[in-house]
Parts: sequence; structure tokens; C-alpha cells
Amino acid sequence: MDRLSNVPGRPCAAAAALDVVGDRWALLIVRELLFGNHRFTEIARNTGAPRDRLAARLRDLVEAGVVEKRQYQTSPERFDYHLTRSGADLAPVLQALLAWGDRWAVDDPPMQLRHHDHDLVLRPICTTCGERVRRDEVTRVGRRPDWDEAGPVSVR
Amino acid sequence: MDRLSNVPGRPCAAAAALDVVGDRWALLIVRELLFGNHRFTEIARNTGAPRDRLAARLRDLVEAGVVEKRQYQTSPERFDYHLTRSGADLAPVLQALLAWGDRWAVDDPPMQLRHHDHDLVLRPICTTCGERVRRDEVTRVGRRPDWDEAGPVSVR
Repeated sequence: MDRLSNVPGRPCAAAAALDVVGDRWALLIVRELLFGNHRFTEIARNTGAPRDRLAARLRDLVEAGVVEKRQYQTSPERFDYHLTRSGADLAPVLQALLAWGDRWAVDDPPMQLRHHDHDLVLRPICTTCGERVRRDEVTRVGRRPDWDEAGPVSVR
Repeated sequence: MDRLSNVPGRPCAAAAALDVVGDRWALLIVRELLFGNHRFTEIARNTGAPRDRLAARLRDLVEAGVVEKRQYQTSPERFDYHLTRSGADLAPVLQALLAWGDRWAVDDPPMQLRHHDHDLVLRPICTTCGERVRRDEVTRVGRRPDWDEAGPVSVR
């Protein structure tokens, strides 16, 4: 589904992504599902989300194809929630938020990511050249003639 | 500033980060500042944010130390907005959202990131070992005895 039509302003895939997960509860739901907590009550307790907002957000995420609702018991009927492939693919977004939060939003990081037997310290590399990416080496090429970095071309 | 006290549920640096930028407009403001668009009217036009919400979000981001408000003209007084170091450090969050959006939220990516003279395809590596990181190789170690991956320890 193309969500650019929901995006006001600049046509941008990050804005389209935020049309799906641009709400603090959405990404915290994804966090809990990544951690293996699949039931509504677990997600509610671990995110602290109000139950009505959590229910609405889960419906939205199911509709967006990020989360799948599964029946795990028939009598009475009970359901839990699982990440789809697109949902699991949100892990790098959460990792980037976690790294930023560790540095700028908490005094003492409450969790350490481990990779095999050592601390995980993520750094993005460019797979085309295999090198570390510094911000001043990245440029953006628009594929739409009507917008550039400054904004809509027609207004100038 | 430690934002964990604002976070309900699991003590988590990603949740603390979302306490600052957990709103679609916040990250789109950061995008425009990264792109070099510093004035309120430019940010309003390029994000499509309602002006009252944009003004409120800019105030929040200035208060959180992510954005700096600078006077650039005295008569009449005019101000623009710039990223602080912590704000510029949000670039990987936007890059992760952009990569996810390109794959799952748009049909035709409206922008291509370039690194030097080739396409930028980001992949996180672990700087401790220099290897690519696969999700099933990452574990999480809590530093707080009262929470683990399943939730608060005291309830079990």
C-alpha cells in the first residue's frame, strides 16, 4: 500500500513510515512483540499504554500489515499478536531510537544489547562500498521533479 | 535530563527517546532541519504540519535541547531553528524510518540517498566485532533487577 497519499507536505518515505508508526505506542507495541510478549495484557502492562488507545493502535497496526492477530484458543476464543515480516523489519528503527535514548534521554541506560558474547555497538556502513557513513558524505537525490531539498520547486 | 521518569511501563531508553520525538511532526521537523530548511514557514510548508501544532512541537523540541532557536534579524526580530548536537544525532532514526518506508510504505521511493558517488544502502554492523548484525544474534541484558524481557519481575 502506498501511504504517500496520506502524507501532507514533502513526498517522503520516512513520512510514509510515520503514517504507520508515528505514535509512541505503536513502536512500543513493536518492542514488546520483538521481546516475545504477545498478549494484550502483557503489552498493556509493559508499555503502560491506556487500554483503549492500545486496542485502537493494535487495530491500526493489524490493518497496516505490521501486526497479525492470531487465535490461540477456541473456547473461550483468545487472540494474541505477532509481528509480520514488515513489523519485524522495524527493529532497526527501535535500535536507532534506543541508541539515541541511551545517549541523550537517560542518565543510566536500563538495557544493554549484546551481540554473541560482547556488547553490541551499532554503526551503519554503506553496503555499496563497505565503509562507515558520515553525515557530511550523504546526499539526497529526489526522484520527483516537483520537490527538492528546499521544498516544492514550483513556488520558486 | 533523565526522561525515564516520564515513561510508563518498562524502563527503556527507546521509550525515553519517544518521550522527546514520539510524534510524527517532531521527526519531520528534524528532517527539514537536516535538509537545511530553518525557518518556520519553510518547515510548515514542507512538513504540512498545522501551524499551531508545529509551533508547540518546536517549543517542546527547544525545551528538550534537540532544537535551538536563533535570532537572525533584529528589526523586526526574526528567528530560525537549528539542530543541536543531540538533534543532529537523530539522523540514524530518520534513516531507519526512510529505509523501512522505502520497503513497506511506498510503491516508488521518492528519494535516493547517495554516499559519495554511489547509492547508499545502510546496514548496521557491530563495531565491537566488525560483523554484520542479524536479529537472532542479538540479546538484551537488563540492568535493572525489577524488569526482564517478559515484564516486571515482581509480578511473577
